[in-house]
Amino acid sequence: MNIREATDKDLDEIWPIFHEIVSAGEAYAYPQETTKEQALDIWFNTPGKTYIFEESGNIPGTYYLKPNQAGPGSHVCNCGYMVSSKARGRGIATAMCEHSQEVAKELGYKAMQFNFVASSNEEAIRLWSKPGFETVGRLPGAFNHPAKGYVDALVMYKWL
Amino acid sequence: MNIREATDKDLDEIWPIFHEIVSAGEAYAYPQETTKEQALDIWFNTPGKTYIFEESGNIPGTYYLKPNQAGPGSHVCNCGYMVSSKARGRGIATAMCEHSQEVAKELGYKAMQFNFVASSNEEAIRLWSKPGFETVGRLPGAFNHPAKGYVDALVMYKWL
Repeated sequence: MNIREATDKDLDEIWPIFHEIVSAGEAYAYPQETTKEQALDIWFNTPGKTYIFEESGNIPGTYYLKPNQAGPGSHVCNCGYMVSSKARGRGIATAMCEHSQEVAKELGYKAMQFNFVASSNEEAIRLWSKPGFETVGRLPGAFNHPAKGYVDALVMYKWL
Repeated sequence: MNIREATDKDLDEIWPIFHEIVSAGEAYAYPQETTKEQALDIWFNTPGKTYIFEESGNIPGTYYLKPNQAGPGSHVCNCGYMVSSKARGRGIATAMCEHSQEVAKELGYKAMQFNFVASSNEEAIRLWSKPGFETVGRLPGAFNHPAKGYVDALVMYKWL
């Protein structure tokens, strides 16, 4: 396994993962109908820092890292992680989360924040709680789940 | 008094308010050195909806309204309000907050969220608590205050 910075060429391999997760509408605050071109903007261009998890020539996972706020909030970063459904339960998200914290510290960030974790996404909450992310906020009905309707969204946070 | 949608022509009157507040670095997550051109982008172009508070030909206040998240979070809006220091304590922020909630409901939003209220900004917390915004999150040390250092930032939220 190897985690490395992504290049635009990796988008073709990342797109099926992105599309699978975003079109389901259960985890990310992107429109379900997000196109590949928009995904390039969301996952590559806007964050500026995008990484991929590579094994045996395949790319089962990816994450981005970016400042969560500008100015007086720019010492806190934000990350998003995606793992192909076929590759889940093998620690790839955890490995990427550990990697992202190291990258964040190298870049001078002091903390990491996840703004919008659907409370129905128990797997994500479990995954991020383990390495010490705390639920510091609960947004009532802020996540419109395609099957469950308005569910709370959590804000998770860790001082690095 | 009159609250109306802003036009690009209003930027010249808004800029001194924006610059006064943002350069102080105590309230907004924008870089203190934000330029007028960047302000146009932040306060007008990105939100898409910007209003001004007008009285006797002057513009002592302004606010923007935008979706806080896309996709499954797009039923929650976000607003930012600014009042000239010379015009504070006269209910202008409160009037704009009330107005913004009406606009938000007309646009179909279900809730309103403030993502990053510095815990040191007691006046803002008092102002938003009155019309029923609840503190639903507390981000440890997320706001780098120019005099006080890392202070907590609050997430405030109201179901409309």
